[in-house]
Amino acid sequence: MAGIPATNLSLYRAIRFKVGDPAALLLLPRADGSTERLLVIRDIEMERARRTARADDVHCPADFEPVGGLSGDRETATAQSVAECLRRRGISAVRADRSLPLIYAHFIRAAGIAVDCDPDLGVLERRAKDAQELDWLREAQRATEGAMKLACETVARASAAADGTLVHAGLPLTAERLRSIIDIHLLEQGYENPESIVAGGPQGADCHDHGHGILRTGEPVIVDIFPRNRKTLYNGDMTRTVVHGAVPSPVAMMHAAVVRAKHAATAAIRPGVTGDAVHQATLAALREDGYASAQPTEPRVPVISHGTGHGIGLEVHEPPLLALKGPPLVVGDVLTVEPGLYAIGIGGVRVEDMVAVTASGSENFNSLQEGLDWR
Amino acid sequence: MAGIPATNLSLYRAIRFKVGDPAALLLLPRADGSTERLLVIRDIEMERARRTARADDVHCPADFEPVGGLSGDRETATAQSVAECLRRRGISAVRADRSLPLIYAHFIRAAGIAVDCDPDLGVLERRAKDAQELDWLREAQRATEGAMKLACETVARASAAADGTLVHAGLPLTAERLRSIIDIHLLEQGYENPESIVAGGPQGADCHDHGHGILRTGEPVIVDIFPRNRKTLYNGDMTRTVVHGAVPSPVAMMHAAVVRAKHAATAAIRPGVTGDAVHQATLAALREDGYASAQPTEPRVPVISHGTGHGIGLEVHEPPLLALKGPPLVVGDVLTVEPGLYAIGIGGVRVEDMVAVTASGSENFNSLQEGLDWR
Repeated sequence: MAGIPATNLSLYRAIRFKVGDPAALLLLPRADGSTERLLVIRDIEMERARRTARADDVHCPADFEPVGGLSGDRETATAQSVAECLRRRGISAVRADRSLPLIYAHFIRAAGIAVDCDPDLGVLERRAKDAQELDWLREAQRATEGAMKLACETVARASAAADGTLVHAGLPLTAERLRSIIDIHLLEQGYENPESIVAGGPQGADCHDHGHGILRTGEPVIVDIFPRNRKTLYNGDMTRTVVHGAVPSPVAMMHAAVVRAKHAATAAIRPGVTGDAVHQATLAALREDGYASAQPTEPRVPVISHGTGHGIGLEVHEPPLLALKGPPLVVGDVLTVEPGLYAIGIGGVRVEDMVAVTASGSENFNSLQEGLDWR
Repeated sequence: MAGIPATNLSLYRAIRFKVGDPAALLLLPRADGSTERLLVIRDIEMERARRTARADDVHCPADFEPVGGLSGDRETATAQSVAECLRRRGISAVRADRSLPLIYAHFIRAAGIAVDCDPDLGVLERRAKDAQELDWLREAQRATEGAMKLACETVARASAAADGTLVHAGLPLTAERLRSIIDIHLLEQGYENPESIVAGGPQGADCHDHGHGILRTGEPVIVDIFPRNRKTLYNGDMTRTVVHGAVPSPVAMMHAAVVRAKHAATAAIRPGVTGDAVHQATLAALREDGYASAQPTEPRVPVISHGTGHGIGLEVHEPPLLALKGPPLVVGDVLTVEPGLYAIGIGGVRVEDMVAVTASGSENFNSLQEGLDWR
């Protein structure tokens, strides 16, 4: 495995060492049948890595200088040194993680060593979260619930001007301002927060419109927050939909169906069931309430336009998918369950929880209410 | 090129489209000799991509389903579809970017198409920032200067308790608290901010210790801030060193030498000069003042323990390095110039600016004072 641990999270997970420079982890066979974990990292990081990284040996590129010397480019030098290290160990073939940057394969092959990519290598292992990871995800989702409560209550408790626009603390309440309230709250809790979705009224009909401008009474506002704990790097991800004031009848119906679908999907989750089957449970529940799976094209006809959810961990989106062709679930999979309905001219309703697959079924990490009324 | 644009910044730069799911950009030859930019992206992102991404055609994996179908795994399906797209176009060989995840090469090769990695492909092009990128970097560095001024003044204007510990607004001033002041200020300016270095006193002797605990009068405090603009994704990066109260004589001498070295390095920067030569200018200036290049091992003997700087843009660390073997500079390279001196038992002094290589020499993006006194 190789890359930049700050962005290659498979590598980060293997070494538990965060750094913004290139690194490589080699799992080498020892004579006694055990495996040596050899980490190649930038020279000035070696001492910190020896103290905290999950590795048996820590080296820097200069420890494996090939004939002809190392490049002055940090990533190239790291790739050259990995190839030279393998060559000195007499290794003739390696299996590589799917995320390996091609430059590493390039230099390893140039040293006469075969590189085989196994697309499935490490994927199941990363999916099955251990007890520590489950704790970090629970903790992240708890912080996300705190931000969600603040956001939805801010909308619900705003005052409405005569034209229906919302006013909070004397100023117009916009999507941008609500995002800023969410961001600052999460920063104070130790989370960095990519741009939240705050999609009010008709904007919510496009399930990936992040939303902008003034929020209004009597319209659904989708709030989707997915922050990352700055220390653990694990993510929360949840969605609620809030309506200020009176709830329009189509929105109430969409919401009731979405909540029923979320419960149906969650009830279907257990080891061995496929992500596809969980998504079919969502679609069946929505169909019972008269809603189809499609892209929204007809005004005021609510449809679901995306899958039921996705794996989550060190990345907000990671395998498996709860969607068509989604694979069998395993104990330790942590998933979002997030059915939604979207209607041109009305907007969207989505409710999203985080759920872990357990031996006996599932555990829902959310406890916050899922209604439209947050007064 | 392929990967996740939110973390593979070479791919992001090529398409200028941010998304946390897999994407691939194919540059395909047209009959008329021009190049077609074909983007493969997740289905629900296609419309947004058609509006804003730098691509001629936007497709999703389902548009290139191979015999046997696509995987239910999003990254695998994207790689399969890229291979199928190339096969349908009758392409027999491709050149790939060094950052290409191996899974893409795996499926392309499995389709009978040769994959060649050129480690230099795109590197120079990414280094040479265009006018727009220079503006984004100037803007990021301006915001960084604002946060730096706030941080250094907060230290300098704190009061000192009888035991020398600093007090700000009635509470002990810790590294953690100063970081939080920096973070909130930057968030309000539209920047996300990875953990800043606030290394007070002896902690500063390790140039990568991020610092913790109470700050004290009469000790150097290294403040190194490198935030990212949330819209443009370009980074700022600068360092100042601040002392509360009386400046100890060795710290004043270290600081004077570091500033002289920074000016010597900056004066050496112009197109064609190597990063190695710029670093030699730093070392020569420090040598004149009696300081050597080494790891700090002897108490109270200041040394420089790292290179002069690094390229910066969409990543805080990117090519080229101003260090041993650093390559010739090109117009549009944007670099940090950050000499420092570190002494066990005393701490560190570092001063860092951001400098662009111009046709006639260089442009310094910083204008903030570089002294130790911020009262």
